[in-house]
Amino acid sequence: MVKKNKKNSCAILIIGNEILSGRTKDKNVSFLASWLNSNLGVKITEVRIVPDLEKIIIKSVLELSKNFSYVLTTGGIGPTHDDITAKSISKAFKKKYTYNIEALNILKKYYGNQFNDPRKKMAKMPAGSKLIYNPSSAAPGFIIKNVICLPGVPLILQSMVHNLKKYLRPGAKILSKTVYCQTVESKIAKELGVIQNRHKKFVEIGSYPFFRLGKIGVSIVTRSSKKSNLQFCHKDIIKILRDKKIKIIRNV
Amino acid sequence: MVKKNKKNSCAILIIGNEILSGRTKDKNVSFLASWLNSNLGVKITEVRIVPDLEKIIIKSVLELSKNFSYVLTTGGIGPTHDDITAKSISKAFKKKYTYNIEALNILKKYYGNQFNDPRKKMAKMPAGSKLIYNPSSAAPGFIIKNVICLPGVPLILQSMVHNLKKYLRPGAKILSKTVYCQTVESKIAKELGVIQNRHKKFVEIGSYPFFRLGKIGVSIVTRSSKKSNLQFCHKDIIKILRDKKIKIIRNV
Repeated sequence: MVKKNKKNSCAILIIGNEILSGRTKDKNVSFLASWLNSNLGVKITEVRIVPDLEKIIIKSVLELSKNFSYVLTTGGIGPTHDDITAKSISKAFKKKYTYNIEALNILKKYYGNQFNDPRKKMAKMPAGSKLIYNPSSAAPGFIIKNVICLPGVPLILQSMVHNLKKYLRPGAKILSKTVYCQTVESKIAKELGVIQNRHKKFVEIGSYPFFRLGKIGVSIVTRSSKKSNLQFCHKDIIKILRDKKIKIIRNV
Repeated sequence: MVKKNKKNSCAILIIGNEILSGRTKDKNVSFLASWLNSNLGVKITEVRIVPDLEKIIIKSVLELSKNFSYVLTTGGIGPTHDDITAKSISKAFKKKYTYNIEALNILKKYYGNQFNDPRKKMAKMPAGSKLIYNPSSAAPGFIIKNVICLPGVPLILQSMVHNLKKYLRPGAKILSKTVYCQTVESKIAKELGVIQNRHKKFVEIGSYPFFRLGKIGVSIVTRSSKKSNLQFCHKDIIKILRDKKIKIIRNV
């Protein structure tokens, strides 16, 4: 079902005019990125946010599905006219857009005599899909090829992700350490560059200025799937900060 | 400098491992989308988030620059080793990556005798760029072809956007109305679909469930650049809600 790509790369495709218009702030990228890394060692390598337009959804799904091990989509699987993810993905993969019997049964049981046509629509998906169960509000997500479709409402999405464990192959978890220090980036930029170069094979160093409670500081983040490399690199950074008499606020 | 595309479409390219790793939540998309619409009638049509990797930045910039009237990039224009936006865009457009004299002078004046090499790096950009001034921390953004590069730190970015007015052609502002009502989507889905179809030429209707303070509800958002069409469509929605005796919580 999933591509044999050792890199375990994953793209997120956020489908929704409400995010592009600025009305709604996306909360799913940071949640999914952290959860996938901590629980499965799967890394988010690209994110796209696209409108509720069939042509664009089809194009994006095909491109991302080809280039990454997995694609997670969020949004557009509800009962209203602007929920067109399942239909678009059916067209993208040339699969019939049809009722999934298991999904129909789940929804029928959940809604009882309130099971109307818009709710039935939530059981329509590409033929051959497997379900991602939804303990919050019943309507399931689905997986077809390497594309996994989840809802856009963050609380519902969050209640469903443990079900991804059976579909995503675990990879190497990215470990990280962060030093928060009282300085400005330009005072450590040169040395950080040297350290990054020394550890370039296994460690990625990020430098992020922050402004909090009237203080200016820099968060230096080291990330690696290899614990010992991470520790060596982190030590190099701490040494530089001490040599330059820069105050370390927090080291986690 | 900018393409003659009446649609005034704009893509955002967020450059930064810290967003993809989940460590930092993006705040720039919703701000830029709202600001660009309110102040310039420019619509965000796609967003991409990519890592700090030259090859991927080049590919994304070229693709987006070709397909949209404007591309706004955020992030990667600071003094550290992981700030590679300016260099990557120089390569993308086959321009020399070189010191901009005006930027050098601005930074020299701002930093005085603290003007070191990492700070000088912030004056390097594609030859032929024009500056986007930065009243917060001096280091300017830049525009080259139809690509506008801004910093990633939200407060600094927000202090710079008024300078975009001279580079982006104003378009038709998208107006919107929202009705918050106490119902579930499936109870109004059919009727909303009919209304959307009736107004499909000029109005876009979005339906978004919410869960707040123990209440379940739906926000129905109508969006259009044409005020009278928006009002007609909005009236149709209100009528349906009244006919179905659905409580309107707020109508703005």
